[in-house]
Parts: sequence; structure tokens; C-alpha cells
Amino acid sequence: MNTNRRDFIKTTAVTAGMMGIGSIASACAAPAAAPKPELKLSFQESTPPGSNLNEKFDYMEKMGIVGFEPGGNGLAGRVNDIQQALRGRKIKVSAICAGFSGWLIAEDEAKRRECMETSKEIMAAGGELGSTGMILVPGFNGQQPSLQMPQAREVLIEQLKELGDFAVKHNTTLILEPLNRSEAWFLRLVADAAAIARDTETPGITCLGDFWHMTREEISDYGAFMSGGKYLRHIHIASRERRKMPGEDGAADNYVDGFRALKELNYQYYVSFECGTAGNREETVPAAVKLLREQWKKA
Amino acid sequence: MNTNRRDFIKTTAVTAGMMGIGSIASACAAPAAAPKPELKLSFQESTPPGSNLNEKFDYMEKMGIVGFEPGGNGLAGRVNDIQQALRGRKIKVSAICAGFSGWLIAEDEAKRRECMETSKEIMAAGGELGSTGMILVPGFNGQQPSLQMPQAREVLIEQLKELGDFAVKHNTTLILEPLNRSEAWFLRLVADAAAIARDTETPGITCLGDFWHMTREEISDYGAFMSGGKYLRHIHIASRERRKMPGEDGAADNYVDGFRALKELNYQYYVSFECGTAGNREETVPAAVKLLREQWKKA
Repeated sequence: MNTNRRDFIKTTAVTAGMMGIGSIASACAAPAAAPKPELKLSFQESTPPGSNLNEKFDYMEKMGIVGFEPGGNGLAGRVNDIQQALRGRKIKVSAICAGFSGWLIAEDEAKRRECMETSKEIMAAGGELGSTGMILVPGFNGQQPSLQMPQAREVLIEQLKELGDFAVKHNTTLILEPLNRSEAWFLRLVADAAAIARDTETPGITCLGDFWHMTREEISDYGAFMSGGKYLRHIHIASRERRKMPGEDGAADNYVDGFRALKELNYQYYVSFECGTAGNREETVPAAVKLLREQWKKA
Repeated sequence: MNTNRRDFIKTTAVTAGMMGIGSIASACAAPAAAPKPELKLSFQESTPPGSNLNEKFDYMEKMGIVGFEPGGNGLAGRVNDIQQALRGRKIKVSAICAGFSGWLIAEDEAKRRECMETSKEIMAAGGELGSTGMILVPGFNGQQPSLQMPQAREVLIEQLKELGDFAVKHNTTLILEPLNRSEAWFLRLVADAAAIARDTETPGITCLGDFWHMTREEISDYGAFMSGGKYLRHIHIASRERRKMPGEDGAADNYVDGFRALKELNYQYYVSFECGTAGNREETVPAAVKLLREQWKKA
């Protein structure tokens, strides 16, 4: 093994400068001038009760929910409606949840191109809405044939450079989402997503931490978020056993350790619900909001 | 923080077993009765000058190096020699560096079995030497054909349960080592190794954090080690651009952020050199030891 490693050193010594070593110490540093972090909660469109956007936003405002995470599918055609419904409200668009087609680690170049084009259309709409970024999964388990490691990562990063530059031009970002292994083999850990973002060398690529997926793939919410560092742009939250509203799984639904990391990182973005409910939405949603605010105080 | 953790551990006790959630909080918590962590430096056999074990150990003792990391290859036949050379010294065996053949994520069951058998032989010898554990890589890029995710992880964990129980019987552990992507596609992140160790449900499986590999695969040494938590059993260290002695790459060789995590985790094990040198060993080795002790103080 040592011999293998010595050989490896020789071959990589030249490229060592490109390894982004500088970011290692700074990655966990909080932005100097940023305000003290607060818990900015966000809902997806299906989370609040209500038969239309205005009813949903009225409900959210009453509860002090300040973020809205729409789906990316068909978003370009909804920009005006969403802007109208948000006018004069304290709610802002948080992240855009996917909606693209194709995938970036596909063996088939046409599928990769399809993902690039549909993602750009969604990011352009997201930019108009002032979104923090569009959530992207590089490849699901069911999307085959896919490239393997390490080639998949190299091809991904080349495409992300282009998508990141596009995102910056539209005042938004592309947010890489790690999923648990039953959904996606390629990207499962927050640290991995952050290192990919770093290696794209564009501020247009960021990453997401999802408590639900982290429950299976990581041993520490605190460690996972600290490993996302300055690249962390969005958080998804759900109960930890059934992916229902936080609190529906009782004692398992503890997020304090992760919230502590968000405070230390001076995290300025949203914590967004991505979950269903096994109960009455009119009861489980307010209970979840109350629980998360209590746990944020404890963190 | 302590209060949060106590509350958390209480409230999650019920589901901790099934979800591994207990470890989410406790993974970052320091063992209650453990002594204050100190920097316990360890050398591999090739690190110190000297033509035999006694000369090497004499050199190490003069420098206050308290750990020795031998290779696992042929270790069973060297147990007596190593015990003799260590007699009356302050140096203990730290981890055993690999030395097994075959690999645990091989498609070929015979290759997996070969890895199990050779690993057991090495762990038995390591146990006699009081080793903290045997370092294992589940699969290198060059070892093909290998199983793919998520099947590879399932097959790995089944084998690790057996190896972990064997390790416990021999008062040692098996230490999973994440490598950078140019060496191993399967296991690259400390968080991933720790989650695999957790899911084996045996204290015989632990993990390693290697500053050299982390430089490429992670953005934060602090985040990586906090994501290893209580499963962290061994640390490898080298310079960060060329894998030489710490300090040989100048300003890039900053380990303070990682050392801070080891202190917070109350890490009780070794930080072991795995590197060559581009200079005169008689100068670069003592300079590296001095640098690491200074940075440990700063952490």
C-alpha cells in the first residue's frame, strides 16, 4: 500500500496546486459582516393547507414562514403568478426544487445536455424570482447507464463550471443535493457535495444538507454541516423515521446538533420543509414549526 | 451544548438502536472519564532513520514519539521481534498498516474471502502487539471487478460484522481508511467511513482520517473529524501538496483546524506519519515533529 501511495505522490505532485488547499481552513469561517443567524423557515408548495398560492401564503405569513420553495417544473411560466402572489408579503422565494430532466453523470451525452438546458431554463426563472438557487441531483440510482467514479466526478465538474457561470449571471446558484443511498449512489454526503462545489471554482455552485438523508448517511448533523461550510446554501428538514412533519416521529426528531452548526457557520439561508404528514396538516404543520423554533433556541 | 446533548440523548434513547440516532449526538461527545487529549505522534517503520528496529526506536524515543505503525504484511512472524525491540520503551504499537490481500467489495467471492482470512491473521498478530487496529481499504480503483453501490456497501457491512467481532475477541479493531478518488472510488470521506462503522453495530469497526486524502476530498479538516466522531481511531498525516514530511510544503501544511476537532472529540489515539521526504530525513523529521507540536498548542 505504501508503494502504491508513493507512486501516486509522484503522479499527482504536479497537480497538487489545483487541490484547493487554501479553502480547507477557511471553509468553516463565518462571513465577517453577516448578521447574526436566525431560523428562516421555508415551505414547499404542498406543505401549507390552501387551494391556491394566496391562501397558502396567507397561512404561511400567519405562522411567520419567510421562505417559499416552488418546484422547478414549468417555473418559467409561473414567474408572474408567483411574483403577484408574493407582492407586499414578507415571504421570499428560497430554493427552487429540481424540475429539470436528464442527468449530469449520464453516459449518454444527449441526456447530459438535456439536463444542462432544462436546468438553465429553471435557473433563469429562479433568478427572476430572487431564488437562492436551484436544487440538483447529479444522478439517481434509477438513471442508467451512468458514468462511474472518478470519471463521473470529472464530467460533472466540467458541466457545473458552465452551469455555475450561468447561475452567477442570473444572480442565483445551483445547489447540489446529497441523497441517501437508496435514492442516489453518486452523491450521498454533504462533505462530498461541498468539495465538488469547491472544485468547480465558481461561486455559482453551492450545496444542500437534508436532515432526512443525513440520518442514514452521516453519524453527526453537526459534522455534516461543518463539512458543508461556506458552500451550504439550503437545508431540507423532515421527521427522521418516516419523513413526515418534524415532531411526528417523536423523540427521534432532534435537530439541535445541526442547528448548532448552522449558528456557528453564521448560516444566512433557509431551512425548508420537504415532507408529508401522517396527521391533520392543520395540526402537524404548526406543531412542527413550534418544535423547530424551540430547538433552534436550544442550539 | 452539554445540556443539549444530555437532553438529546435522553429523548432519542428509544429509537437510538434502530436509527443509529444515538450516535448522532454522542458521536461528537467526548468520553466522560477520558483524560485530556494530548498529541500522541506515531511513525511508520520507514519514517525514522536507522538500519534496524532498535536504532529506529532509539531515534523515536529521543524525539518523544510514542507510537509505532508497522506494516501488516508478514506481521505474524514479527510479533516476537517487535515485542523484544519495544521492551522497556515508552513506545507502543499504534495501528497496523494494511498488509492483507484480496478486497471486501470484490465481485469474486474468493477475493473477498481471501481478504477476510488475511485480515484476521494480521488482526490476531496486531492484538498480540496491543495495536489500536488494522487499517483496511475496502477496495482500490485498480481492484476490479468490484461490486457497485449500494450493493457493495451491503456486502461490505456483512463482512465487517464478522471481522469486527473477530477484532473485539483479539482486543483490537479494524480501521476503515477513506482514500482520495485517484486511489479509491468507494470510500473517500471520513463521514462515510464512520456511518459504515455505525451500521456494522460492532465496536470492532472504527475509522481513520488522513490529512493527505482529506485535502482533496473534503473542504474542512474540522468538519471531517467531527463527522468521524467516536469512530475515529487513527490519524495519518503528511505535507499537503506532495505527501512529504509535514512542513515540507510550507504554508499549505496547516493542521490546526483538524487538531482543534481532535481536542473537542477528546481523541485518545495516535497521529501517525505516512509520508516520504524530499529533504534530509535527519532534518525534515525533527522539523515536522516540532511543527506539529506547535500547531497542536495553537489548536
